[in-house]
Amino acid sequence: MKNTFGQNISVTLFGESHGEAIGAVIDGLTPGIPVYEERISRELTRRRPSSSIDTPRRENDNFRILSGVFGGKTTGTPLAIIIPNENVKSSDYEYGSARPSHADYTAFCKYHGFEDFRGGGHFSGRITAALCAVGGILLPALEKLGIKIGTHILKCADIKDNEFCDFERDITALNSAPFPTISSECGKNMTKKIKEAAENSDSIGGITQTAVLGAFAGLGEPWFDSVEGLISHAVFSLGGIKGIEFGKGFGFADTKGSESNDEFKVENGKIVTKTNNNGGINGGITNGMPIVFNCAVKPTPSISRPQNTVDFIKKENTEITIHGRHDPAIIRRICPVIDSVCAIVISDLLASRYGNDVFLKGDKLCSSD
Amino acid sequence: MKNTFGQNISVTLFGESHGEAIGAVIDGLTPGIPVYEERISRELTRRRPSSSIDTPRRENDNFRILSGVFGGKTTGTPLAIIIPNENVKSSDYEYGSARPSHADYTAFCKYHGFEDFRGGGHFSGRITAALCAVGGILLPALEKLGIKIGTHILKCADIKDNEFCDFERDITALNSAPFPTISSECGKNMTKKIKEAAENSDSIGGITQTAVLGAFAGLGEPWFDSVEGLISHAVFSLGGIKGIEFGKGFGFADTKGSESNDEFKVENGKIVTKTNNNGGINGGITNGMPIVFNCAVKPTPSISRPQNTVDFIKKENTEITIHGRHDPAIIRRICPVIDSVCAIVISDLLASRYGNDVFLKGDKLCSSD
Amino acid sequence: MKNTFGQNISVTLFGESHGEAIGAVIDGLTPGIPVYEERISRELTRRRPSSSIDTPRRENDNFRILSGVFGGKTTGTPLAIIIPNENVKSSDYEYGSARPSHADYTAFCKYHGFEDFRGGGHFSGRITAALCAVGGILLPALEKLGIKIGTHILKCADIKDNEFCDFERDITALNSAPFPTISSECGKNMTKKIKEAAENSDSIGGITQTAVLGAFAGLGEPWFDSVEGLISHAVFSLGGIKGIEFGKGFGFADTKGSESNDEFKVENGKIVTKTNNNGGINGGITNGMPIVFNCAVKPTPSISRPQNTVDFIKKENTEITIHGRHDPAIIRRICPVIDSVCAIVISDLLASRYGNDVFLKGDKLCSSD
Amino acid sequence: MKNTFGQNISVTLFGESHGEAIGAVIDGLTPGIPVYEERISRELTRRRPSSSIDTPRRENDNFRILSGVFGGKTTGTPLAIIIPNENVKSSDYEYGSARPSHADYTAFCKYHGFEDFRGGGHFSGRITAALCAVGGILLPALEKLGIKIGTHILKCADIKDNEFCDFERDITALNSAPFPTISSECGKNMTKKIKEAAENSDSIGGITQTAVLGAFAGLGEPWFDSVEGLISHAVFSLGGIKGIEFGKGFGFADTKGSESNDEFKVENGKIVTKTNNNGGINGGITNGMPIVFNCAVKPTPSISRPQNTVDFIKKENTEITIHGRHDPAIIRRICPVIDSVCAIVISDLLASRYGNDVFLKGDKLCSSD
Repeated sequence: MKNTFGQNISVTLFGESHGEAIGAVIDGLTPGIPVYEERISRELTRRRPSSSIDTPRRENDNFRILSGVFGGKTTGTPLAIIIPNENVKSSDYEYGSARPSHADYTAFCKYHGFEDFRGGGHFSGRITAALCAVGGILLPALEKLGIKIGTHILKCADIKDNEFCDFERDITALNSAPFPTISSECGKNMTKKIKEAAENSDSIGGITQTAVLGAFAGLGEPWFDSVEGLISHAVFSLGGIKGIEFGKGFGFADTKGSESNDEFKVENGKIVTKTNNNGGINGGITNGMPIVFNCAVKPTPSISRPQNTVDFIKKENTEITIHGRHDPAIIRRICPVIDSVCAIVISDLLASRYGNDVFLKGDKLCSSD
Repeated sequence: MKNTFGQNISVTLFGESHGEAIGAVIDGLTPGIPVYEERISRELTRRRPSSSIDTPRRENDNFRILSGVFGGKTTGTPLAIIIPNENVKSSDYEYGSARPSHADYTAFCKYHGFEDFRGGGHFSGRITAALCAVGGILLPALEKLGIKIGTHILKCADIKDNEFCDFERDITALNSAPFPTISSECGKNMTKKIKEAAENSDSIGGITQTAVLGAFAGLGEPWFDSVEGLISHAVFSLGGIKGIEFGKGFGFADTKGSESNDEFKVENGKIVTKTNNNGGINGGITNGMPIVFNCAVKPTPSISRPQNTVDFIKKENTEITIHGRHDPAIIRRICPVIDSVCAIVISDLLASRYGNDVFLKGDKLCSSD
Repeated sequence: MKNTFGQNISVTLFGESHGEAIGAVIDGLTPGIPVYEERISRELTRRRPSSSIDTPRRENDNFRILSGVFGGKTTGTPLAIIIPNENVKSSDYEYGSARPSHADYTAFCKYHGFEDFRGGGHFSGRITAALCAVGGILLPALEKLGIKIGTHILKCADIKDNEFCDFERDITALNSAPFPTISSECGKNMTKKIKEAAENSDSIGGITQTAVLGAFAGLGEPWFDSVEGLISHAVFSLGGIKGIEFGKGFGFADTKGSESNDEFKVENGKIVTKTNNNGGINGGITNGMPIVFNCAVKPTPSISRPQNTVDFIKKENTEITIHGRHDPAIIRRICPVIDSVCAIVISDLLASRYGNDVFLKGDKLCSSD
Repeated sequence: MKNTFGQNISVTLFGESHGEAIGAVIDGLTPGIPVYEERISRELTRRRPSSSIDTPRRENDNFRILSGVFGGKTTGTPLAIIIPNENVKSSDYEYGSARPSHADYTAFCKYHGFEDFRGGGHFSGRITAALCAVGGILLPALEKLGIKIGTHILKCADIKDNEFCDFERDITALNSAPFPTISSECGKNMTKKIKEAAENSDSIGGITQTAVLGAFAGLGEPWFDSVEGLISHAVFSLGGIKGIEFGKGFGFADTKGSESNDEFKVENGKIVTKTNNNGGINGGITNGMPIVFNCAVKPTPSISRPQNTVDFIKKENTEITIHGRHDPAIIRRICPVIDSVCAIVISDLLASRYGNDVFLKGDKLCSSD
């Protein structure tokens, strides 16, 4: 379905970086969900470039809800939300020279030269603002069901943040942190490294870590719609992400079953696991423990150094120096986007299991798992 | 869509480990594709437990094609293939005690106790035989278009295999290798380690590496159906896989843009990249270079040591010692399954771009990318 | 999705008339639904040719459930059911001469000559046996929720049956009637007409009428998944059906709004309509009244008279006389198939609204509409 | 998928009658299709109320394309188009009294009172303007492939228009006719009848007839995506339509196979049928003849006479007299909407068979059928 994701609660994305507006249509929403415009704004703010380590392109993100909300609540019919593009400088871009590790050349292969190439067009990170707007609607609805989502930078350059410790507290803190790390000391050091990279006309990557707290046991499918499969499918939409691992992930390669199996126990009348190496998922299905996953984020491909490349129209070698405006590291700004993408997946899983009216059911859900 | 994957060429899986038969329905196949029963057998054989390091459960995998093939070729209508279950010993399993890191407990949460729990039921690795049968049909069809897929064990215990070097040669060798490593020396050492684990009543994990050679440039979508997204969605169906990375993957976290960007060049009149850190995918879309990805495989959860766990019916702590028959490492047997799953994704991407009759077009496809 | 229908409860069909077996995979079923083999047999019997007015091809329909049922109840994982083809006489068919109003020529256009043409292949009415088997599972599950489905022959030749009067009683009677009319007198006269047509080497069409009793109010979508849209989509799979109308249908063309609007009233504390010209659906959504629709069934295209046609291989005019075995009217045998198809749609609508576990909820559902 | 229709070329609809804007997102479009704003305007004009027999609500339909078009051509990424709502008079509507045969009550059952009820909300015929905008993009793209679509009023009150005779000429004439009939005499008489109904505070229904000329042979699927199934699914989204028949449709009930079978012949080297009783479709698949279908349109439920009804909030009987602005017959305005809906289905069928780039292929398509 290309630009649509989700079976029962689905999101359709549209827009280009330098077009009139970007936006999203959310379908399948339970009627009666409160829509908080200030929460949408907050999610957009978390993603927006703001500090000296971000691209100088600044936008107000004055979103407008065109449909699907009435009296401050969802109607149950498609909710269309658009964000006009404001601060557009198309002259920064010219067509034909493929920016290395960007989608210029692959877009040409796919769209035969008809693509809107300005600012990366439909491939631009700009489109993720629409995802954050969607998150601004879904995240508080999930919170009402006791489900919280948060993402921090686990690693950037050679600095490693703490892992999640007190999920509840950490997620709350992350959702209003200007720089999303659990240790603020680490955050400062990462910022320094990012600035250094920028001064060096370079860019850096990193690893994010996301936790979903409170997801009921029993969500997901053995084939093919495992929770890992759905989250990864959605998350890999984000151009900069090149890897994902759940729980111990690639660390499993170095362990034995006797070391990494998650033993069960009964705790306060509830079945839990002693460790959470499987990241809350067994056989593709949630077991009630926090869902935990890490994403590998590549360095922003846009760097202001000369790079060898080709002109794909002329089919000849050439050199490119990217001017324009860009981030030396997208890892800070990608965190709220992952939260939003994750909220889409979890909402859809809930709707598939509990039906269209899932967000109206509240406490009744918890007791049924 | 749960047990169905793929938009234009889709696969529906069914079956339980100890039921009458497992199987698959492939829909959307181009009419006129030759179906080679010996190739289906070969793919089943690659996956089948065979040596001293595999589970002692042995099956003949006497598949039967029920529909969709006429005169040795696909008809274009749904191809149903079943594999009867033969060597079934249900007494090995009892219900209620959750095997740690298995799906017993999550299946109970999802299916309320109605699941066929014998041998892991629908969660069993047994179901992957049906995927290999599908691969036995799709892989040769892709090969006719010049697309080859191969998987080796990149890492097992602390032994690391060589990376792909000559893709064409390596893939060909892997597809008939009894133990899928590029270096046969490494393969022997890995086998030794797996035996040691088994003798120790333990299990081990590892990392696989897969290459898709010859995929045309221009496949995939920016949102949401990136090539990474589709492959990961399909691959995470396999219960033992807990991580996936494309190209440099998690290694990107330690690099700078200037080090890891893939510069383009013209080579023999064709646009290629000098390095392939992005694993053949830019902005979610194939760039014509080999698609390369690694999967993290966890140690088989079944180990014949006592483990603490719960009885989820009685909701009380208990202990379990798994007898039954199981693999000390599934990593050898998962390689052909990944090839097959990957063949489904690539076939579907081709059909979405080039239409229903994609496999009849042959050379015409190549020239259009 | 071609051979798959349904969003949350979906059915995938496969098989050819003269292949090894036909079958279906039902996915998304609530775990714990009792599966009554005798009910499956009964639905197959209702569809099976049996009397002098049906094709002489007779099959035992010895279905086998391969997966998805454990201890007599659904597991919640895909239920695969197959029916071997037994009484096959392929010599009756030869390739190239297009039987008028059959799919021979269109199959050739679509499948380029690779189609299994024997006995109509995948286009054969034989495939509807698999639909009836599905109905044999879904219909009793719906009945437990108070939803009943029945179909009678409203018109055949120039004989018109009574309309539904007492839905409950009529549906019950129809489900065990050897010839599905409300007035048995009408049934006898229709049988006579069908025999006359057969003696005359001809065939006749008719109109069926279906009622769904007890469907809760609030099912369906305004765009695009109206109840009319979903039912018609599914029903038009049946090759012989060329028209469908809901409620007054084409009769609306001759009425005024003041005559055909369905006024509401409160009756025994329940909101109902005084008339049911809209067939239980307003704005695409059920209103709680019986869903009523009629289908136009064309005369069986197979007639044993010489007909002009073409040989589509040679692209030249020719003549054909169809021998083989065929029904002079499929209208009797299509009634249980419509019931089954309708059961798929209603089950899926319920699952979409009330969630995956819909059939476990019983009385709780009724109170929520 | 609710408000999304189509597999490879899909349309997502959003909007409410009295909200800020309505709109559509078209996904899967071939890049490089010219977008003619004047054609979009023309399709919107055909649908717009304009004469004395239409609702007095008048809107400029100043559509805006937000994305997916660059340099006057489609980019291949989602095309979002919105139409602001301008002439809104919400005071005409009050909540609780169910207008008979409207969706007020069913919307309440489905959306629990959260629906935007003003002007029918998401159920309003207003939303069809977005469909016509989509038609304004797809119809000229189809015309370039030689495929033309036209709809006329076959019957209104007791007046019957001529059937299609010269398809090419009739469709061209209909597409610019102020009142869509083949005989202009009939059109005048129908207009008179509609005025009479209006003067009488009443409304009338009718039957439309649509033809698709030039659809290649071989489109559609035997199960479940027959051409009849897909067209009917899409067409039944239109609230006023309650029946559909293909070719002879319900007329088949009164014929014999010997009378109504469509014999084939070779004509100018092309295989055609002598008659077209099957409306261009055999076994669910196009045979190359014109696709012809009729739709039953019910009288506009809004009539300005007192009607009995219920207040569904208070659950008590009441009376309603609808003031507001409404059409005495929607049949004139529904014709261009059916054309647009039909264009979506045909475009999607073409993309499914010939691939994503279908509209770039032009002549190459014709030769392949």
